[in-house]
Amino acid sequence: MHRSNRGDVDPFLVMDVMERARAAEAAGRRIVHMEVGQPGTPAPEGARRALSDAMAAGPLGYTVALGLPALRARIARHYAEVHDVDLDPARVVVTAGASAAFVLAFTALFEAGDRVGLGLPGYPSYRHILKALSLDAVGFETQAEERFQPVPDALPEGLRGLILASPGNPAGTILDRASLAGLLDAAAEQGISVVSDEIYHGLDYGRRAVSALEITDDVYVINSFSKYFSMTGWRIGWMVVPEDHVRQVERLAQNLFICPPHASQVAALAAFECRAELEANRAVYAANRQRMIEGLPGAGFPVFAPPDGAFYVYADVAHLGGDSLALSAEILERAGVAVTPGLDFDPGRGHRTMRFSYAGSELEIAEGLSRLAGWYAAR
Amino acid sequence: MHRSNRGDVDPFLVMDVMERARAAEAAGRRIVHMEVGQPGTPAPEGARRALSDAMAAGPLGYTVALGLPALRARIARHYAEVHDVDLDPARVVVTAGASAAFVLAFTALFEAGDRVGLGLPGYPSYRHILKALSLDAVGFETQAEERFQPVPDALPEGLRGLILASPGNPAGTILDRASLAGLLDAAAEQGISVVSDEIYHGLDYGRRAVSALEITDDVYVINSFSKYFSMTGWRIGWMVVPEDHVRQVERLAQNLFICPPHASQVAALAAFECRAELEANRAVYAANRQRMIEGLPGAGFPVFAPPDGAFYVYADVAHLGGDSLALSAEILERAGVAVTPGLDFDPGRGHRTMRFSYAGSELEIAEGLSRLAGWYAAR
Repeated sequence: MHRSNRGDVDPFLVMDVMERARAAEAAGRRIVHMEVGQPGTPAPEGARRALSDAMAAGPLGYTVALGLPALRARIARHYAEVHDVDLDPARVVVTAGASAAFVLAFTALFEAGDRVGLGLPGYPSYRHILKALSLDAVGFETQAEERFQPVPDALPEGLRGLILASPGNPAGTILDRASLAGLLDAAAEQGISVVSDEIYHGLDYGRRAVSALEITDDVYVINSFSKYFSMTGWRIGWMVVPEDHVRQVERLAQNLFICPPHASQVAALAAFECRAELEANRAVYAANRQRMIEGLPGAGFPVFAPPDGAFYVYADVAHLGGDSLALSAEILERAGVAVTPGLDFDPGRGHRTMRFSYAGSELEIAEGLSRLAGWYAAR
Repeated sequence: MHRSNRGDVDPFLVMDVMERARAAEAAGRRIVHMEVGQPGTPAPEGARRALSDAMAAGPLGYTVALGLPALRARIARHYAEVHDVDLDPARVVVTAGASAAFVLAFTALFEAGDRVGLGLPGYPSYRHILKALSLDAVGFETQAEERFQPVPDALPEGLRGLILASPGNPAGTILDRASLAGLLDAAAEQGISVVSDEIYHGLDYGRRAVSALEITDDVYVINSFSKYFSMTGWRIGWMVVPEDHVRQVERLAQNLFICPPHASQVAALAAFECRAELEANRAVYAANRQRMIEGLPGAGFPVFAPPDGAFYVYADVAHLGGDSLALSAEILERAGVAVTPGLDFDPGRGHRTMRFSYAGSELEIAEGLSRLAGWYAAR
C-alpha cells in the first residue's frame, strides 16, 4: 500500500524531548516539565460530578451533530457575559476539541490547493492539518517588534484564508482591538476568510483578549474547553460560524464526526458553573507568569515576547549557541528541565528560540526556574 | 465568506424523518424508532464504573496520539481471542470513533482527486467524507443476488482505494472468507488500497464475520466501540494499519486529533471485561432479528437481503409505490413507526428500498412490527 504525500507531515521535535524525559524518569530521575501545553489540574470537580450523575441517569448515545442545545445556548450566553456580544446559539457548533473545529473550518471554507496564511512562529498543527487536507499552508514570519503577530501590510499575496491566534502559541501575545480590527478589515477587502483561534481566551493577565466576534460576524471563531476550563483530554471545544455557513458545517459535522463526545459535552456544560475553581487555576498561572518574568533573565533568558496570555514564554536563545534543539537536550540533561525548541513553531528561525510552559503548579515552576538558574550559573 | 464546494455534501434524508418523529412526539404521540442505528442500551456498567474511578484518581489529560498503551494491547489481544490473529499492538491506533479512523485512513492513503470505490447501497458518510477530503467517491451498484456486496469482476476502473464493509450497513450481509479474500486479492493485483470497515463485528448471528486481518496484513481495518460495545456517544474506536504506515498515521493523528477522548479510552478498556452484559445485548438483537424475519413479510415487506449481522433489515418496497421517501412519511404518519428510506444509502435505487433497524428493545421491536402489520392490513 502506498502512503500519501498529503499525509507525510513533519514530526514534532518536542516528541524527542518528551521521549528523553520519559526515559530519564524511568531511570529514576525527577524531571520538571516546562514543555507541555496543558494544565496539570483535572476537569473542574462540578464537571466530573455532572458526568457521574449523567452516567447513572441514562445512556449517553449520539447527540445531534451540532451538540447539545443546552450547551450551545450556554456558550452563546458566555459571549454576552464576557464579550458583550449578542450571539444566536444557532451559530454555535460544539466540536471534538479545537482540533475537530479546524478540520471542519478548513473543509467548509477551502478547496484543495487554496493558499491559507499563518504567522510564524505559530501552532505547528495549523500547517500540518492544512497539508493533510491538500491545502497550501503559507507560513510568513512575524516580527518580535510586532509582538509576533501579523500586520495587514505584511500579508502574503493570493491568500484564500488566514489563521489568527490571540493569545498566540508559542508567544502568548495578544492582538488589541485596533490591531485585530485592522487585520479583519484587510482580509475582508482582499476576500480572505479568517479563522480566529481563541483557545487561550480566559487566560489573560492584564491586556484583555478581544474576540473577533466583537468586531464582525463574518469570521470563524474557534475556542476550546482544554485550557481555561482545564479539560484537555476530554476533546471538547466549539466554533462560531456565520449564519449562512451553519448548514454546511452541520452536514460536514454529521459525516466527519457524527457528534462530539457526549460525556464531554455534559461535563463541559457543568464546567461553566465552576468559576471559583477555574479562577483559582488562573491565579496560579498569573503567579507563575510573574515568577517567569522575574526569574528567566537570571537563568540566561533575558529576551522574550511580552506574555500577555496563555501559559507560555517564548524566549530568544541565540546567545546560547544558536541551536535550540541541542540546547533543549543540554537543559534536559544538565538541569533536568524539559523545554520545547522553537523549531516546532518556526522552521526558519526557531533554532534560536525556546518555549517555556508555565502551566504546572507553583512549586513545579519555582523548581524549574531554580534549576535553570543553577544550570546557567554553572555553564 | 465563501463556502467551499468540497464542503457542500448532501444532507441525510433520514433527518427529515427524525425531525417529523420528534415533532409527533412533542405533540404527545408515541413513536417506535426503527430508523436509528444505535443501541438503546448504555455503555456497560463496568465501563462506566471504571471511568468514575478514574475521574476520582487523577486528571484525564492528553494521552499519546495512538492511544493508551494498555488499550492498544487489549485490542491486539482481542484479535487473538476472536480471530486467531497474532497482532502487534504497535499496529493498533485508537481513534475518536470509526469516523476519525476514516479521516485518518483517507488522508494517510490518498491524494486529492484519487478515485475511491464503494458499493451501493452503503453507509452514506463514506462518500461525504471522501468528498470533504477532495477525493473522488466512485459509488458502484451491488446486486441483491450478490447479497449487496462487491465482487471482483465488477470493480470500477482506475481505483486507488476501495472500502469494504462486512457486516454491511444497510443490508447487514457478511462476506464469507473466500469472497473477502477474492476481493483483497483483486485489489492487491490492481494496486488498490483497501479499507475494511468492521464496525459491526461482534454482531453476527450464525454466519461468522471474518476480519480482513485473517487474510492479509496489507489492509487498513476499522472498528468501533459504538455497536457491539454499546458506546456510540463516546466516540471511541480503533484502526489497524500495516506496520510501515504506523508513523504516518501517528503524525496525522497528533495533528488532526491530538488524542482520542481520554475518558472514553478508560471506559473502552474496561468494556472488554463486560462480556456477560454485552452478550445479553446481543441476545436481544438475535431475538429481534428473528422476530423481524418472521414479521416483516406479513407487514408488507416480504423481500429483503439476508440479515447476517449488524442490526438492520434492508427490504424491497418497490411494490408499495416506488417512492421510499413518501412511504417513510406515510408509515410515520399512519403507523407511528420511524424508518429510513433507502435513498440515503443508494441514491440511484434507494427509492424502492427501506432500512429497518432492530437495535431497540424486544418490546419496542415487537410493537413496531405489530404497528406495521396493522398499517399494511388497513392499506
